[in-house]
This record gives sequence, C-alpha cells and structure tokens, in this order.
Amino acid sequence: MNTQRTIWPHPQKASAVQVIDQRFLPHQLVVMDLHTVAQVYEAIQKMVVRGAPLIGATAAYGVFFACQEAAQAPEPEAHFAQSLAHLRESRPTAVNLFWAIDQQVKNLENAVSWPEKATLAWQGAARIVEEDVAICRQIGLHGLPLLEKIAAQKPGAPVQVLTHCNAGRLGCIEWGTATAPLYLAHQNGLPLHVWVDETRPRNQGASLTAWELQQAGIPHTVIVDNTGGHLMQHRQVDICIVGTDRTTRTGDVANKIGTYLKALAAYDNQVPFYVALPSTTIDWQISEGLREIPIETRSADEVRYITGWDESTQALHTVRLTPPQSPALNYGFDVTPARLITGLITERGLCPASEAGLLQLYPEQALASVND
Amino acid sequence: MNTQRTIWPHPQKASAVQVIDQRFLPHQLVVMDLHTVAQVYEAIQKMVVRGAPLIGATAAYGVFFACQEAAQAPEPEAHFAQSLAHLRESRPTAVNLFWAIDQQVKNLENAVSWPEKATLAWQGAARIVEEDVAICRQIGLHGLPLLEKIAAQKPGAPVQVLTHCNAGRLGCIEWGTATAPLYLAHQNGLPLHVWVDETRPRNQGASLTAWELQQAGIPHTVIVDNTGGHLMQHRQVDICIVGTDRTTRTGDVANKIGTYLKALAAYDNQVPFYVALPSTTIDWQISEGLREIPIETRSADEVRYITGWDESTQALHTVRLTPPQSPALNYGFDVTPARLITGLITERGLCPASEAGLLQLYPEQALASVND
Repeated sequence: MNTQRTIWPHPQKASAVQVIDQRFLPHQLVVMDLHTVAQVYEAIQKMVVRGAPLIGATAAYGVFFACQEAAQAPEPEAHFAQSLAHLRESRPTAVNLFWAIDQQVKNLENAVSWPEKATLAWQGAARIVEEDVAICRQIGLHGLPLLEKIAAQKPGAPVQVLTHCNAGRLGCIEWGTATAPLYLAHQNGLPLHVWVDETRPRNQGASLTAWELQQAGIPHTVIVDNTGGHLMQHRQVDICIVGTDRTTRTGDVANKIGTYLKALAAYDNQVPFYVALPSTTIDWQISEGLREIPIETRSADEVRYITGWDESTQALHTVRLTPPQSPALNYGFDVTPARLITGLITERGLCPASEAGLLQLYPEQALASVND
Repeated sequence: MNTQRTIWPHPQKASAVQVIDQRFLPHQLVVMDLHTVAQVYEAIQKMVVRGAPLIGATAAYGVFFACQEAAQAPEPEAHFAQSLAHLRESRPTAVNLFWAIDQQVKNLENAVSWPEKATLAWQGAARIVEEDVAICRQIGLHGLPLLEKIAAQKPGAPVQVLTHCNAGRLGCIEWGTATAPLYLAHQNGLPLHVWVDETRPRNQGASLTAWELQQAGIPHTVIVDNTGGHLMQHRQVDICIVGTDRTTRTGDVANKIGTYLKALAAYDNQVPFYVALPSTTIDWQISEGLREIPIETRSADEVRYITGWDESTQALHTVRLTPPQSPALNYGFDVTPARLITGLITERGLCPASEAGLLQLYPEQALASVND
C-alpha cells in the first residue's frame, strides 16, 4: 500500500479514491475508500481528512461523485445542486472547501452530458491535487538552502529544526509546507533532527508530525509545548519552521495556538524563525493580524479530555484531565507579529515578513492595494 | 473531613497523621493514614505527597515514627539510623527532605529516652508545619497589595491572574506560594479570575491548581500551555504569578518547564510577571541561572503517556499519545532570567529580581558573598 500521498485514485476500483483515516494516527494506519458524496461529506466532517489543501482536494473528488450520482437521479440538476450544498456544509469555516467546489463548478460549465461532466470533474480534482503537490515542492526547494547553509556551518552535526503543529504532508497531498524543506533535505542526505512540539490540545505534533517523520525515517523527538524555550536558550535549535493558516499583507501570521510563544523564544535567542506558506494563505485585504484576524474558539472538551491509545485493549480511548467542575477555554490559533519572523518561505521564493517583502514576490498584488 | 491542610494529625488515632493522596487528584479526594516509617517512605516515594515543603513536613513526621519504632526494637540506635537512611532515599533530589530530617535529628540531640525523643519529634514536625504555614501566609500578605492595586484600577471587573504549574497549597501545607495572595484576595472579597496553565507533561495545573481553586470557590479556567501568549496579547491577563524551585542570588528563577515562555509573553505585552518564593529556595551561592542551575531530565514516558479519568470505569487510566517508535525528551524545568521578572514576592516583602533587590530584604546574605 502506497501511502506517500494522503488521497489517491483507488488502485482497483475505477471511480473511487482512497484516503488515510487520520483519526487513527499515529496508532493505526487505516485506509478508507470514498466513492459517494455521503462518504466525502463524512470524511471531511468527521476529520478523517483535515488540513486546508487536503479538504479541498477531497471535496473536488466529491464533485465528481456528485456528477455520477446526478446522472442516476430523476432530476439530475436538482440532485447535483443538493449534493454541492451538502458538501459545502461539511466544514463551514474551511475556505479551501468552497474554493475547490467553485473551481470544479467553473470547470464543468461547458460540459453538456453528465458522463462528460464526471470526466471533467475527475480531471479537475486530479489537477487540484497536482497543483498542491507542485506548490509544496516549490516551498521545499526554496526552504532547502536555509538548511544547507546551517549544515555547512556545523559539518557532521545534524541541523536542529523545531516545528509546531502539523504543517506536514498529512494536511496537504504530499511534501507539506513547513516539512517540505525537511523531506528534500533528508532525500539529499543532509543530517537532520526535528523537535516536534506535541501541540496541545489536539496534539497534531505528537500524533501527525511525529508519525510522518517516523515514516520518512527523519530523526525527531517529541517534546511538550513548554520545552522549546529551554532548548533555544541552550542552542539546541538552529531554526524554527512552522506553517500558517492565514497571513496578512504585512507578514503577520495566524497559526496554531502557541506559535507566538515559540517565535518570542526564537527572537530572544537569535534563532531564525521561518514560516512556510502557499500564497493562497495570504489575505491581501488585511494588514494588522492581531486586530483583524478573528480567532476561532473551539470546544472546551478538547482541553478537558484527551484521546490516546489504550495498549491493553489496542483501541483509542478517551480520558478526562481536569476537575469536572473546572471550565476550560480553547483558542485554536494565535497571531505572530511580523517583527518576530525572520522570513517567509513561499512557492515563489523567500522574502522578509513585510508588505515590501511580499510585494517583491507578488507584484501583481500591489495594484490590489491601490484599488482598495 | 477538613482538608484545608495537606497533612494533619489524625483526628482519632493518637500517633498518626493523615495526608491527601494527591495521585488521585483532581478525580478523587482520597485521604491516607500514615503511622509507620514504611508508610511515610511510600507516600513520598510514590508521590502521594509532593512539593518541597510538604515532603519535608511528611519526612519530619517520619522521624517521629522512627523514634516510636526504635523504642520497640532490640537495638534502638541502629534501628533509628536505618529508618532515617531509608527515609532519605525516598526522593533523592528533594532538598527539603534532608533539611527536615536534619532539623529533627538536631532537635532530638539532648533527649535521653525514646519516648522523650518521640515527643520532641512530634513537636518538631508540628513546628516545621506551622513555620511553612506562616511563611506562605506572609508571602500572601505581601502579594495581596499587587492584586488590590489592579482591582482598584478596574472596579467591578475581576483581576485576571495567570499561573503555571502548581505553586499552591497542595505542594505546601496551606496557602501555597503563588496562590497565597489569591486565597487572601478571595477571602477579602476581591473579584478574581485565574487562568490555569495545564502544565504538560505532568498536568499539575489542570489537576492540582484547578482542583485547589475549585475547592476554594475561586473562578478559574483551564487553558493549554500554548494559550497564555494569545491571552496576554489581548489584555486578558493583568498579572502573572508563578512559583520557583530555585532562585539565584541575582534573581534568575528555575521553575516548571514553560515558565520562561510565559515570562517572554508577559514582557512583550507589558504584563507584570511576579515570582512568589520562600527565601529557602534562594541559592545564594549561584548567580547565573542559565549556566549554573542543572535541569533535571525526567522520564520520556511522561510525554508519551498520559493518565486521566476514565468516566466509564470511574478509575484512572493511562493512554499513549505518540507513535511507539518516536522518542521524546522531558526537561522538568527552565530558567527565567531576572530581566523578564517584574518582582519577587518573599516572606519578607517584595523586591526587584536582582542581587541588590534581594540583599535589601536579606542583608545578612551580603556577608556570605564577601566570604566566598
């Protein structure tokens, strides 16, 4: 079973795809078949798949299934519209979900028959997948020299990287964003060691990033989120690379809660702090991250309860961590101001975390500002 | 049952004490009787009791039991010496353990009979207990005005305090250190709300601090360790108060891992950051925390596994969080440099986190420096 990607055409069944059921990671590698709209809805809604690019790609295949199902329905047009509306509700705040569905709808505009639409939708989904792979690989190629430069300064010793959350291939299709330079460096034989923040409360680091790196054979160590500052004080981190959910025009970055604390520690200890991002995460309309980026509040039960692997029953098991009467609060993200960020790694290259820096790489956005 | 203190004379049995079995907190309030040296050893070794002052007090009662048991032994002196050696091995790095045993030995020097020694040991243990209570209460009285001042500036609104780990009464006898000002403020009717860092990996915040505050009726909210920076950016924290395990002559503070990250965030957002400490935690011989304070590395399994409450079986249950092949690293403490600390709250009053500040409160230590 090739699980190099997170979504792929089913090797036996013609009109189906397979995904890794990420709910069981890092404890079990479970592969799920998707061949109906209902299954795609469930996979997105129940977080079988997660991460903006992967949600988008999965939804794009959902549009393909919607074409197939419409073809069998008494009122194909109505059925199709209903399917898309349903898919849109699977994760109501996932921008890539809407984007991918819209792309696909545009893509089908000129097709007449439902079989023709289905063919175009399948091709369109594959294109969305390949585009993400290419963008992540470009991020990797642009980030790689940062690691090579550090390696040259400490021959024989591993380059020590710290990352937070999972900006890895599991949220994308392949390569990931913050992890892309790591995978390329490892392929090139660069000695590496990655400090993996566990990333409470959902533990994406301890479960997903650790699993990814383990699968790839990249040396790594899981640490609690409290540890990074101490490591940086003692020069055990050469570079931090993290992802981002949303980036302002001026280079402020909203990423998983706790990113700001690591950026502060990096700044205090002169450790370079980089953010890897596809330019699709840049919101060119906003320039003050702390004021303008709304921060999602998630369920307090993600703090109060934790799910792990019960070694005695060989199954996932949930336990409570807090007193039953103690409330908890769960912000999903925080904002790291551009002043703490050494640079951004985009698919077009590196730049300083500033409006001038970003506009040098994306000059077409200068006009957007003037037009506002 | 009065569990206002963490150790107290058994209300029915003459020569016994009771302690809270903290291994079951916050899920169950279990009280354990101690009336033998073996039980005291087990209670300290298995972390039924934890926290430097409480370990010391429990060991002091252990010396009382050692006197009683020696009186019944064929060779009392040898038996007594063996008991003390055994007690000293219960937590080999706990300075207060040795200190309390030494205090008691000195205390018994002039007694002749074993019953007389036992009486002196019981009184000595009670004195150690009362001294800790008095010191913590003094810390509370000196910290209280900080909270009153903030309260005066925001009439009607709660003073928002952030704390890390458990520097509460559960590690002491009563009051705690960082929590002492909070308990006094609450008694005085000051509106308070405490952000409780869960404090991975051992979750002393989510389990012990949350439980303490809940018992005392002080409004609080549990947050993951990643959240404090975001709260401070959004002015939801008025003051941070934490404890310390070891303080240098110059005001550097070694406290639970992650304290440094909160101090950085406080500094970046101009939130006052205070450290509460009994002067016994000051190591007057060292002045460079980052270089001179050795940091304990604890078992990686504290990161890889977590224990919580299984609501279906109503019992403690342990699950694994990381991939089985992924290593983990677990530093117990980090060092917060004095430059990030607004002030120290000691039993003699407030002072800046600096050598000059500390010597103003503890002028007798100026000589120590000269003699070195």
